[in-house]
Amino acid sequence: MFISETKIRVRYAETDQMGVVYHSNFFPYFESARTESIRELGFTYADMEKMGVIMPVVDVHCRYIRPARYDDLLNIRTTLKEMPLQHKIEFHHDVFNEKEEHLATAKITLYFVEAGTMKKTVMPKQLQEKLQAYFP
Amino acid sequence: MFISETKIRVRYAETDQMGVVYHSNFFPYFESARTESIRELGFTYADMEKMGVIMPVVDVHCRYIRPARYDDLLNIRTTLKEMPLQHKIEFHHDVFNEKEEHLATAKITLYFVEAGTMKKTVMPKQLQEKLQAYFP
Amino acid sequence: MFISETKIRVRYAETDQMGVVYHSNFFPYFESARTESIRELGFTYADMEKMGVIMPVVDVHCRYIRPARYDDLLNIRTTLKEMPLQHKIEFHHDVFNEKEEHLATAKITLYFVEAGTMKKTVMPKQLQEKLQAYFP
Amino acid sequence: MFISETKIRVRYAETDQMGVVYHSNFFPYFESARTESIRELGFTYADMEKMGVIMPVVDVHCRYIRPARYDDLLNIRTTLKEMPLQHKIEFHHDVFNEKEEHLATAKITLYFVEAGTMKKTVMPKQLQEKLQAYFP
Repeated sequence: MFISETKIRVRYAETDQMGVVYHSNFFPYFESARTESIRELGFTYADMEKMGVIMPVVDVHCRYIRPARYDDLLNIRTTLKEMPLQHKIEFHHDVFNEKEEHLATAKITLYFVEAGTMKKTVMPKQLQEKLQAYFP
Repeated sequence: MFISETKIRVRYAETDQMGVVYHSNFFPYFESARTESIRELGFTYADMEKMGVIMPVVDVHCRYIRPARYDDLLNIRTTLKEMPLQHKIEFHHDVFNEKEEHLATAKITLYFVEAGTMKKTVMPKQLQEKLQAYFP
Repeated sequence: MFISETKIRVRYAETDQMGVVYHSNFFPYFESARTESIRELGFTYADMEKMGVIMPVVDVHCRYIRPARYDDLLNIRTTLKEMPLQHKIEFHHDVFNEKEEHLATAKITLYFVEAGTMKKTVMPKQLQEKLQAYFP
Repeated sequence: MFISETKIRVRYAETDQMGVVYHSNFFPYFESARTESIRELGFTYADMEKMGVIMPVVDVHCRYIRPARYDDLLNIRTTLKEMPLQHKIEFHHDVFNEKEEHLATAKITLYFVEAGTMKKTVMPKQLQEKLQAYFP
């Protein structure tokens, strides 16, 4: 299993008139969390795109438990439960506030796709080698 | 069953560098579609908030089938399959482009909540009466 | 002078916890207004990009006079005061609500740029011919 | 003069199909930069709102010099050139990428307003005392 944690500060722009973070604004948080979790492994999503592999999101599920509020310093815990062997990768995200209250839980599924042909492909070897250590 | 259709034009702001609509930008489309479907019934979500009932989103699921692109005129079909009798309401959304290709399918669950106390409540009578006609 | 009007409904997603539209969310409204004003001329910005001409925004100025609110049906008036002869084009936007209150006024400057080389270019002939009628 | 610097990582969500950060997405960066600059002073905008003072944005001007790109680690330099004595405060923001290229320059004007009455007010004493040190 690979687990990573990322801190994100809620912006005013991300709140709505209910006084809480608008539901869809959690998804860019999850994106940042995925990006930072890959960076921790010594690789970047930006590098992957330069190698011609893109990762479109194909499925999202998010359950909102408690509201996130302006200026909250969120902790996003990102978990890879399985080593992705084919074109599909599933990230689990859990959001906590500074009181360690559990605010939301999500599963985001992405595909590895060749940018030119838009055909499904597999995870680049560089990333696979980094991840392998977490799935002995 | 209650079905409603809403047209939404994709903005440049909603695309990302993959050249497609960023995945979370579909959720404001679904919000517009819900708002317009309620307006068709002769009621507005804005009125409901003035009556002290708010509708936080508690769960979202979206499956992305084909990309939406800049300037696409999307058709969002919104379906209520069941008459919500308690505090919960489930909207189903399907997104089509002008070629009638199916781009995405989603289920959004919201609660009826009293704005002051944040306690669960039921659908305002005004909306219930309008909807009843579709669930004989 | 070329003047065009576009109606835009404010989304919940675009409000913030002050209960009004967050200031930067006016810019996608202006973008929609520009897109629709060009479409009225019988041309589309999407076509222009397919021809290899893109229009990056190089300068924005917006003054906020009164708040825009959730579910407001805004009227965006877009004005071209001068025929753009070189690489630069200036759009003026004024935002009104349904009570015809003046909410905001903006000037957005864009360049015509060749997508491949990123060099400044001029307005495509097709658009120039359409616009010429308004600047006799 | 009061100067503060804030680092912000560009999200994929903030890019558009031109492959650069969409122009209006700089404004939430500026908001974060203002928030962090106030926090450095030992005060928070969130505290100010709890005291009943809000700060609506009344005027923005931004000039875009070079594009910001996905995964860029931006440095936002925020400057207060004058001690605000009345209801108005002007922040200057300059954006640099990791190569220290100057990407954008902006001026954002906000008012101090009483949340209840929406009447203009002045900067809370707590913040004024912190800032005074920078304007001897």
